[in-house]
Amino acid sequence: MDAETTRTLTIKHGVLLKNDAQAAANRTRFASQRLTVVNLLSSPGSGKTTLLERTLVDLGPRIPMAVIVGDLATDNDANRLGRTGVPVHQITTGTVCHLDAAMIARACDELSVPDGTLLIIENVGNLVCPASYDLGEAYRVVLMAVTEGEDKPAKYPKIFKTADLLLITKVDLTEAAGFDRPRALQTVHQVAPQAEVIEVSARSGVGLERWYQRLWEWCSDSG
Amino acid sequence: MDAETTRTLTIKHGVLLKNDAQAAANRTRFASQRLTVVNLLSSPGSGKTTLLERTLVDLGPRIPMAVIVGDLATDNDANRLGRTGVPVHQITTGTVCHLDAAMIARACDELSVPDGTLLIIENVGNLVCPASYDLGEAYRVVLMAVTEGEDKPAKYPKIFKTADLLLITKVDLTEAAGFDRPRALQTVHQVAPQAEVIEVSARSGVGLERWYQRLWEWCSDSG
Repeated sequence: MDAETTRTLTIKHGVLLKNDAQAAANRTRFASQRLTVVNLLSSPGSGKTTLLERTLVDLGPRIPMAVIVGDLATDNDANRLGRTGVPVHQITTGTVCHLDAAMIARACDELSVPDGTLLIIENVGNLVCPASYDLGEAYRVVLMAVTEGEDKPAKYPKIFKTADLLLITKVDLTEAAGFDRPRALQTVHQVAPQAEVIEVSARSGVGLERWYQRLWEWCSDSG
Repeated sequence: MDAETTRTLTIKHGVLLKNDAQAAANRTRFASQRLTVVNLLSSPGSGKTTLLERTLVDLGPRIPMAVIVGDLATDNDANRLGRTGVPVHQITTGTVCHLDAAMIARACDELSVPDGTLLIIENVGNLVCPASYDLGEAYRVVLMAVTEGEDKPAKYPKIFKTADLLLITKVDLTEAAGFDRPRALQTVHQVAPQAEVIEVSARSGVGLERWYQRLWEWCSDSG
Protein backbone atom coordinates (compact mmCIF):
# COMPACT_ATOMS: atom_id res chain seq x y z
CA MET A 1 0.00 0.00 0.00
CA ASP A 2 1.54 3.35 -1.03
CA ALA A 3 1.70 6.46 1.16
CA GLU A 4 -1.21 8.16 -0.58
CA THR A 5 -3.49 5.13 -0.20
CA THR A 6 -2.60 4.89 3.48
CA ARG A 7 -3.29 8.60 3.95
CA THR A 8 -6.64 8.30 2.12
CA LEU A 9 -7.70 5.37 4.31
CA THR A 10 -6.65 7.27 7.46
CA ILE A 11 -8.72 10.28 6.42
CA LYS A 12 -11.72 8.07 5.57
CA HIS A 13 -11.44 6.41 8.98
CA GLY A 14 -11.34 9.87 10.58
CA VAL A 15 -14.42 10.99 8.66
CA LEU A 16 -16.37 7.91 9.79
CA LEU A 17 -15.26 8.35 13.45
CA LYS A 18 -16.37 11.98 13.37
CA ASN A 19 -19.67 10.89 11.79
CA ASP A 20 -20.18 8.27 14.51
CA ALA A 21 -19.71 10.94 17.20
CA GLN A 22 -22.28 13.21 15.52
CA ALA A 23 -24.65 10.24 15.09
CA ALA A 24 -24.40 9.55 18.84
CA ALA A 25 -25.24 13.21 19.53
CA ASN A 26 -28.21 12.96 17.14
CA ARG A 27 -29.40 9.83 18.93
CA THR A 28 -29.34 11.63 22.31
CA ARG A 29 -31.28 14.54 20.82
CA PHE A 30 -33.85 12.23 19.20
CA ALA A 31 -34.36 10.39 22.52
CA SER A 32 -34.86 13.62 24.46
CA GLN A 33 -37.52 14.66 21.92
CA ARG A 34 -39.06 11.16 21.77
CA LEU A 35 -38.52 11.09 17.99
CA THR A 36 -38.71 7.76 16.18
CA VAL A 37 -36.15 8.05 13.39
CA VAL A 38 -36.11 5.71 10.39
CA ASN A 39 -33.37 5.67 7.72
CA LEU A 40 -34.76 4.52 4.35
CA LEU A 41 -32.11 3.15 1.96
CA SER A 42 -32.11 1.62 -1.50
CA SER A 43 -30.73 1.83 -5.02
CA PRO A 44 -32.18 4.52 -7.31
CA GLY A 45 -35.68 3.72 -8.51
CA SER A 46 -36.62 1.10 -5.90
CA GLY A 47 -39.71 3.05 -4.99
CA LYS A 48 -38.69 4.91 -1.80
CA THR A 49 -40.54 8.11 -2.69
CA THR A 50 -43.70 6.39 -3.94
CA LEU A 51 -43.91 4.23 -0.82
CA LEU A 52 -43.21 7.22 1.40
CA GLU A 53 -45.83 9.35 -0.36
CA ARG A 54 -48.49 6.72 0.24
CA THR A 55 -47.30 6.18 3.83
CA LEU A 56 -47.61 9.90 4.59
CA VAL A 57 -51.14 10.00 3.15
CA ASP A 58 -52.30 6.87 4.98
CA LEU A 59 -50.45 7.24 8.28
CA GLY A 60 -50.08 11.05 8.50
CA PRO A 61 -53.54 11.54 10.00
CA ARG A 62 -52.77 8.95 12.72
CA ILE A 63 -49.12 9.76 13.65
CA PRO A 64 -47.26 13.11 13.59
CA MET A 65 -44.69 12.69 10.81
CA ALA A 66 -41.86 14.59 9.14
CA VAL A 67 -39.46 13.76 6.33
CA ILE A 68 -35.87 14.59 5.41
CA VAL A 69 -35.04 13.67 1.83
CA GLY A 70 -31.59 13.49 0.25
CA ASP A 71 -30.77 13.82 -3.45
CA LEU A 72 -27.73 14.84 -5.47
CA ALA A 73 -29.84 17.35 -7.41
CA THR A 74 -33.44 18.65 -7.73
CA ASP A 75 -36.08 19.10 -5.04
CA ASN A 76 -38.58 16.97 -6.99
CA ASP A 77 -39.06 14.53 -4.10
CA ALA A 78 -39.55 17.25 -1.47
CA ASN A 79 -42.17 18.96 -3.64
CA ARG A 80 -43.94 15.67 -4.27
CA LEU A 81 -43.91 14.62 -0.60
CA GLY A 82 -44.73 18.14 0.62
CA ARG A 83 -48.08 17.97 -1.17
CA THR A 84 -49.22 15.46 1.47
CA GLY A 85 -49.12 18.28 4.06
CA VAL A 86 -46.34 16.63 6.09
CA PRO A 87 -43.27 18.83 6.85
CA VAL A 88 -40.44 17.94 4.44
CA HIS A 89 -36.84 19.15 4.34
CA GLN A 90 -34.71 18.56 1.22
CA ILE A 91 -30.94 18.06 1.45
CA THR A 92 -29.23 18.50 -1.92
CA THR A 93 -25.83 16.84 -1.67
CA GLY A 94 -24.31 17.89 -5.03
CA THR A 95 -21.75 15.18 -5.72
CA VAL A 96 -21.85 13.60 -2.24
CA CYS A 97 -23.10 10.03 -2.51
CA HIS A 98 -24.73 9.70 0.94
CA LEU A 99 -26.30 11.62 3.81
CA ASP A 100 -24.20 12.05 6.96
CA ALA A 101 -25.04 12.73 10.60
CA ALA A 102 -24.05 16.41 10.46
CA MET A 103 -26.41 17.05 7.51
CA ILE A 104 -29.22 15.48 9.56
CA ALA A 105 -28.42 17.62 12.63
CA ARG A 106 -28.59 20.80 10.51
CA ALA A 107 -31.83 19.65 8.82
CA CYS A 108 -33.43 18.99 12.22
CA ASP A 109 -32.51 22.53 13.34
CA GLU A 110 -34.32 23.92 10.32
CA LEU A 111 -37.32 21.57 10.45
CA SER A 112 -37.91 22.09 14.23
CA VAL A 113 -39.79 18.80 14.50
CA PRO A 114 -42.34 18.58 17.36
CA ASP A 115 -41.76 16.04 20.16
CA GLY A 116 -43.08 12.54 19.49
CA THR A 117 -42.74 12.75 15.69
CA LEU A 118 -41.99 9.83 13.37
CA LEU A 119 -39.10 11.22 11.31
CA ILE A 120 -38.36 9.33 8.11
CA ILE A 121 -35.09 10.04 6.32
CA GLU A 122 -35.05 9.11 2.63
CA ASN A 123 -31.36 8.64 1.86
CA VAL A 124 -29.60 9.21 -1.49
CA GLY A 125 -30.38 6.32 -3.87
CA ASN A 126 -27.24 4.22 -3.54
CA LEU A 127 -26.72 0.67 -2.23
CA VAL A 128 -23.06 1.23 -1.32
CA CYS A 129 -21.93 4.43 0.41
CA PRO A 130 -24.90 5.25 2.68
CA ALA A 131 -24.38 1.91 4.45
CA SER A 132 -21.28 3.28 6.24
CA TYR A 133 -22.90 6.44 7.61
CA ASP A 134 -24.87 6.14 10.85
CA LEU A 135 -27.33 9.05 11.00
CA GLY A 136 -28.41 8.38 14.58
CA GLU A 137 -31.51 6.54 13.37
CA ALA A 138 -33.29 3.96 15.53
CA TYR A 139 -34.20 1.75 12.57
CA ARG A 140 -32.72 1.04 9.17
CA VAL A 141 -35.10 0.01 6.40
CA VAL A 142 -33.67 -1.22 3.10
CA LEU A 143 -35.84 -1.47 -0.01
CA MET A 144 -35.29 -3.90 -2.85
CA ALA A 145 -37.66 -3.94 -5.83
CA VAL A 146 -38.65 -7.20 -7.53
CA THR A 147 -37.56 -5.56 -10.81
CA GLU A 148 -33.91 -5.46 -9.59
CA GLY A 149 -33.49 -9.24 -9.52
CA GLU A 150 -32.89 -11.71 -6.71
CA ASP A 151 -29.17 -11.31 -6.00
CA LYS A 152 -28.82 -7.79 -4.60
CA PRO A 153 -28.24 -8.87 -0.95
CA ALA A 154 -25.32 -11.09 -2.05
CA LYS A 155 -23.78 -8.36 -4.20
CA TYR A 156 -24.25 -5.44 -1.76
CA PRO A 157 -23.96 -7.30 1.57
CA LYS A 158 -23.08 -4.44 3.93
CA ILE A 159 -26.29 -2.48 3.52
CA PHE A 160 -28.45 -5.60 3.87
CA LYS A 161 -26.52 -6.87 6.90
CA THR A 162 -27.25 -3.60 8.74
CA ALA A 163 -30.99 -3.58 7.94
CA ASP A 164 -33.62 -3.97 10.67
CA LEU A 165 -36.31 -4.37 8.06
CA LEU A 166 -36.17 -5.29 4.39
CA LEU A 167 -39.06 -4.16 2.22
CA ILE A 168 -39.41 -6.08 -1.03
CA THR A 169 -41.19 -3.48 -3.17
CA LYS A 170 -43.22 -3.44 -6.39
CA VAL A 171 -44.52 -6.97 -5.75
CA ASP A 172 -47.36 -6.27 -8.19
CA LEU A 173 -44.66 -6.64 -10.89
CA THR A 174 -43.41 -10.04 -9.62
CA GLU A 175 -44.78 -12.01 -12.53
CA ALA A 176 -44.07 -9.42 -15.25
CA ALA A 177 -40.45 -9.11 -14.05
CA GLY A 178 -40.01 -12.89 -13.73
CA PHE A 179 -38.87 -12.42 -10.11
CA ASP A 180 -37.88 -15.71 -8.46
CA ARG A 181 -39.33 -15.08 -4.99
CA PRO A 182 -38.10 -18.28 -3.26
CA ARG A 183 -34.54 -17.69 -4.51
CA ALA A 184 -34.64 -14.05 -3.39
CA LEU A 185 -35.90 -14.95 0.09
CA GLN A 186 -33.21 -17.60 0.40
CA THR A 187 -30.52 -15.02 -0.47
CA VAL A 188 -31.99 -12.57 2.05
CA HIS A 189 -32.02 -15.16 4.82
CA GLN A 190 -28.42 -16.15 4.07
CA VAL A 191 -27.00 -12.61 3.95
CA ALA A 192 -29.28 -10.78 6.37
CA PRO A 193 -30.89 -13.26 8.77
CA GLN A 194 -31.44 -10.43 11.29
CA ALA A 195 -33.81 -8.52 9.01
CA GLU A 196 -37.56 -8.83 9.12
CA VAL A 197 -39.00 -9.03 5.59
CA ILE A 198 -42.22 -7.38 4.43
CA GLU A 199 -43.37 -7.61 0.82
CA VAL A 200 -45.22 -4.54 -0.37
CA SER A 201 -46.69 -2.76 -3.36
CA ALA A 202 -47.43 0.94 -3.00
CA ARG A 203 -49.53 0.63 -6.14
CA SER A 204 -51.78 -2.31 -5.22
CA GLY A 205 -51.62 -1.76 -1.46
CA VAL A 206 -50.39 -5.29 -0.72
CA GLY A 207 -48.42 -5.47 2.55
CA LEU A 208 -48.89 -1.82 3.48
CA GLU A 209 -50.90 -2.51 6.63
CA ARG A 210 -48.06 -4.67 7.95
CA TRP A 211 -45.54 -1.87 7.18
CA TYR A 212 -47.75 0.71 8.91
CA GLN A 213 -48.19 -1.64 11.88
CA ARG A 214 -44.41 -1.94 12.20
CA LEU A 215 -43.97 1.86 12.11
CA TRP A 216 -46.75 2.23 14.67
CA GLU A 217 -45.06 -0.26 17.01
CA TRP A 218 -41.68 1.46 16.60
CA CYS A 219 -43.32 4.76 17.58
CA SER A 220 -44.96 3.14 20.61
CA ASP A 221 -41.57 1.77 21.71
CA SER A 222 -40.03 5.28 21.50
CA GLY A 223 -42.94 6.97 23.30
CA MET B 1 -15.14 24.71 5.99
CA ASP B 2 -13.09 23.11 8.81
CA ALA B 3 -9.52 21.88 8.48
CA GLU B 4 -10.54 18.22 8.25
CA THR B 5 -13.07 18.86 5.46
CA THR B 6 -10.47 20.85 3.53
CA ARG B 7 -7.93 18.05 3.98
CA THR B 8 -10.50 15.44 2.85
CA LEU B 9 -11.33 17.43 -0.29
CA THR B 10 -7.63 17.90 -1.06
CA ILE B 11 -7.04 14.15 -0.79
CA LYS B 12 -10.10 13.42 -2.96
CA HIS B 13 -8.82 15.85 -5.56
CA GLY B 14 -5.42 14.12 -5.46
CA VAL B 15 -7.03 10.69 -5.88
CA LEU B 16 -8.95 11.86 -8.95
CA LEU B 17 -5.86 13.50 -10.48
CA LYS B 18 -3.90 10.29 -9.98
CA ASN B 19 -6.77 8.33 -11.52
CA ASP B 20 -6.88 10.67 -14.53
CA ALA B 21 -3.16 10.07 -15.13
CA GLN B 22 -3.66 6.29 -14.99
CA ALA B 23 -6.69 6.60 -17.28
CA ALA B 24 -4.56 8.46 -19.84
CA ALA B 25 -1.98 5.66 -19.66
CA ASN B 26 -4.75 3.08 -20.15
CA ARG B 27 -6.02 5.03 -23.17
CA THR B 28 -2.57 4.95 -24.77
CA ARG B 29 -2.30 1.23 -24.13
CA PHE B 30 -5.78 0.55 -25.53
CA ALA B 31 -4.95 2.55 -28.69
CA SER B 32 -1.69 0.67 -29.24
CA GLN B 33 -3.61 -2.63 -28.99
CA ARG B 34 -6.56 -1.31 -31.06
CA LEU B 35 -8.94 -2.17 -28.22
CA THR B 36 -12.42 -0.63 -28.24
CA VAL B 37 -13.22 -0.07 -24.58
CA VAL B 38 -16.74 0.56 -23.31
CA ASN B 39 -17.62 1.49 -19.72
CA LEU B 40 -21.11 0.24 -18.78
CA LEU B 41 -22.70 2.12 -15.87
CA SER B 42 -26.04 2.00 -14.07
CA SER B 43 -27.77 1.61 -10.74
CA PRO B 44 -28.02 -1.92 -9.30
CA GLY B 45 -30.58 -4.07 -11.09
CA SER B 46 -30.87 -2.07 -14.32
CA GLY B 47 -30.03 -5.13 -16.35
CA LYS B 48 -26.33 -4.64 -17.17
CA THR B 49 -25.44 -8.31 -16.78
CA THR B 50 -28.48 -9.65 -18.63
CA LEU B 51 -27.90 -7.31 -21.56
CA LEU B 52 -24.21 -8.14 -21.59
CA GLU B 53 -24.88 -11.88 -21.47
CA ARG B 54 -27.12 -11.65 -24.51
CA THR B 55 -24.66 -9.33 -26.28
CA LEU B 56 -21.80 -11.80 -25.78
CA VAL B 57 -23.90 -14.66 -27.15
CA ASP B 58 -25.15 -12.71 -30.18
CA LEU B 59 -22.05 -10.66 -31.00
CA GLY B 60 -19.27 -12.89 -29.66
CA PRO B 61 -19.15 -15.03 -32.81
CA ARG B 62 -18.76 -11.87 -34.95
CA ILE B 63 -16.35 -9.71 -32.88
CA PRO B 64 -13.54 -10.75 -30.49
CA MET B 65 -14.80 -9.69 -27.05
CA ALA B 66 -13.68 -9.65 -23.42
CA VAL B 67 -15.30 -8.46 -20.22
CA ILE B 68 -14.14 -6.96 -16.93
CA VAL B 69 -16.86 -6.97 -14.29
CA GLY B 70 -16.85 -5.09 -10.97
CA ASP B 71 -18.84 -5.99 -7.86
CA LEU B 72 -18.48 -5.35 -4.14
CA ALA B 73 -18.86 -9.06 -3.45
CA THR B 74 -19.44 -12.40 -5.21
CA ASP B 75 -18.24 -13.58 -8.61
CA ASN B 76 -21.79 -14.43 -9.71
CA ASP B 77 -21.63 -12.16 -12.74
CA ALA B 78 -18.25 -13.44 -13.93
CA ASN B 79 -19.48 -17.03 -13.68
CA ARG B 80 -22.67 -16.18 -15.51
CA LEU B 81 -20.89 -14.26 -18.29
CA GLY B 82 -18.04 -16.77 -18.50
CA ARG B 83 -20.51 -19.46 -19.60
CA THR B 84 -20.76 -17.63 -22.95
CA GLY B 85 -17.15 -18.62 -23.66
CA VAL B 86 -15.92 -15.01 -23.71
CA PRO B 87 -12.90 -14.23 -21.44
CA VAL B 88 -14.14 -12.56 -18.23
CA HIS B 89 -12.17 -11.04 -15.37
CA GLN B 90 -13.93 -10.26 -12.06
CA ILE B 91 -12.82 -7.37 -9.85
CA THR B 92 -14.20 -7.64 -6.32
CA THR B 93 -13.98 -4.19 -4.74
CA GLY B 94 -14.98 -4.99 -1.14
CA THR B 95 -16.39 -1.70 0.14
CA VAL B 96 -15.12 0.45 -2.76
CA CYS B 97 -18.09 1.93 -4.60
CA HIS B 98 -16.55 2.22 -8.10
CA LEU B 99 -13.90 0.83 -10.43
CA ASP B 100 -10.80 2.97 -10.98
CA ALA B 101 -8.20 3.16 -13.74
CA ALA B 102 -5.53 1.27 -11.78
CA MET B 103 -7.87 -1.68 -11.20
CA ILE B 104 -8.51 -1.80 -14.96
CA ALA B 105 -4.77 -1.71 -15.75
CA ARG B 106 -4.15 -4.67 -13.42
CA ALA B 107 -7.14 -6.58 -14.82
CA CYS B 108 -5.83 -6.07 -18.38
CA ASP B 109 -2.45 -7.49 -17.34
CA GLU B 110 -4.18 -10.63 -16.10
CA LEU B 111 -6.66 -10.96 -18.97
CA SER B 112 -4.01 -10.44 -21.70
CA VAL B 113 -6.61 -9.38 -24.23
CA PRO B 114 -5.71 -9.97 -27.91
CA ASP B 115 -5.31 -6.95 -30.19
CA GLY B 116 -8.53 -5.64 -31.78
CA THR B 117 -10.82 -6.84 -28.98
CA LEU B 118 -14.04 -5.14 -27.90
CA LEU B 119 -13.51 -4.85 -24.13
CA ILE B 120 -16.65 -4.14 -22.13
CA ILE B 121 -16.26 -3.06 -18.51
CA GLU B 122 -19.33 -3.63 -16.32
CA ASN B 123 -18.90 -1.12 -13.49
CA VAL B 124 -20.16 -1.46 -9.91
CA GLY B 125 -23.92 -0.82 -9.77
CA ASN B 126 -24.01 2.79 -8.58
CA LEU B 127 -25.31 5.95 -10.27
CA VAL B 128 -23.07 8.28 -8.25
CA CYS B 129 -19.42 7.45 -7.60
CA PRO B 130 -18.36 5.67 -10.83
CA ALA B 131 -19.22 8.87 -12.77
CA SER B 132 -16.06 10.58 -11.42
CA TYR B 133 -13.61 7.83 -12.38
CA ASP B 134 -12.33 7.81 -15.94
CA LEU B 135 -11.14 4.28 -16.75
CA GLY B 136 -9.56 5.20 -20.08
CA GLU B 137 -12.65 4.01 -21.95
CA ALA B 138 -13.49 5.27 -25.43
CA TYR B 139 -17.25 5.19 -24.79
CA ARG B 140 -19.49 5.53 -21.78
CA VAL B 141 -22.82 3.74 -21.85
CA VAL B 142 -25.36 4.43 -19.10
CA LEU B 143 -28.35 2.12 -18.57
CA MET B 144 -31.67 3.20 -17.10
CA ALA B 145 -34.50 0.68 -16.71
CA VAL B 146 -38.12 1.67 -17.31
CA THR B 147 -38.85 0.21 -13.87
CA GLU B 148 -36.75 2.94 -12.20
CA GLY B 149 -39.02 5.81 -13.20
CA GLU B 150 -38.59 8.79 -15.48
CA ASP B 151 -36.58 11.22 -13.33
CA LYS B 152 -33.19 9.54 -12.89
CA PRO B 153 -31.27 11.83 -15.28
CA ALA B 154 -32.46 14.89 -13.33
CA LYS B 155 -31.57 13.35 -9.96
CA TYR B 156 -28.18 11.88 -10.96
CA PRO B 157 -27.08 14.42 -13.58
CA LYS B 158 -23.31 13.85 -13.61
CA ILE B 159 -23.39 10.27 -14.85
CA PHE B 160 -25.96 11.07 -17.56
CA LYS B 161 -24.11 14.21 -18.69
CA THR B 162 -20.96 12.13 -19.34
CA ALA B 163 -22.76 9.38 -21.32
CA ASP B 164 -22.10 8.82 -25.03
CA LEU B 165 -25.04 6.45 -25.21
CA LEU B 166 -28.04 5.95 -22.97
CA LEU B 167 -29.74 2.56 -23.08
CA ILE B 168 -33.30 2.56 -21.79
CA THR B 169 -33.62 -1.07 -20.70
CA LYS B 170 -36.45 -3.51 -19.89
CA VAL B 171 -38.78 -1.76 -22.34
CA ASP B 172 -40.92 -4.91 -22.40
CA LEU B 173 -42.05 -3.77 -18.92
CA THR B 174 -43.02 -0.23 -20.02
CA GLU B 175 -46.74 -0.75 -19.66
CA ALA B 176 -46.60 -2.93 -16.54
CA ALA B 177 -44.37 -0.37 -14.79
CA GLY B 178 -46.48 2.58 -15.93
CA PHE B 179 -43.37 4.21 -17.44
CA ASP B 180 -44.10 7.62 -18.96
CA ARG B 181 -41.86 7.39 -22.03
CA PRO B 182 -42.40 10.94 -23.41
CA ARG B 183 -41.62 12.47 -20.01
CA ALA B 184 -38.51 10.30 -19.63
CA LEU B 185 -37.21 11.23 -23.09
CA GLN B 186 -37.83 14.91 -22.36
CA THR B 187 -35.79 14.64 -19.15
CA VAL B 188 -32.99 12.83 -20.99
CA HIS B 189 -32.86 15.50 -23.72
CA GLN B 190 -32.78 18.28 -21.12
CA VAL B 191 -30.05 16.77 -18.94
CA ALA B 192 -28.00 14.83 -21.48
CA PRO B 193 -28.58 16.27 -24.99
CA GLN B 194 -25.20 14.83 -26.10
CA ALA B 195 -26.26 11.21 -25.54
CA GLU B 196 -27.70 8.99 -28.22
CA VAL B 197 -30.67 7.00 -26.89
CA ILE B 198 -31.46 3.38 -27.74
CA GLU B 199 -34.43 1.59 -26.17
CA VAL B 200 -33.83 -2.11 -25.61
CA SER B 201 -35.16 -5.26 -24.02
CA ALA B 202 -32.74 -8.13 -23.54
CA ARG B 203 -35.78 -10.34 -22.97
CA SER B 204 -37.85 -9.52 -26.06
CA GLY B 205 -34.91 -8.54 -28.25
CA VAL B 206 -36.32 -5.10 -29.08
CA GLY B 207 -33.60 -2.60 -30.00
CA LEU B 208 -30.72 -5.08 -29.74
CA GLU B 209 -29.76 -4.90 -33.42
CA ARG B 210 -29.33 -1.14 -33.10
CA TRP B 211 -27.14 -1.63 -30.00
CA TYR B 212 -25.03 -4.25 -31.78
CA GLN B 213 -24.76 -1.96 -34.83
CA ARG B 214 -23.43 0.84 -32.60
CA LEU B 215 -20.83 -1.49 -31.00
CA TRP B 216 -19.83 -2.71 -34.45
CA GLU B 217 -19.33 0.87 -35.67
CA TRP B 218 -17.32 1.78 -32.60
CA CYS B 219 -15.05 -1.20 -33.26
CA SER B 220 -14.65 -0.18 -36.91
CA ASP B 221 -13.68 3.36 -35.82
CA SER B 222 -10.96 1.93 -33.53
CA GLY B 223 -9.67 -0.55 -36.07
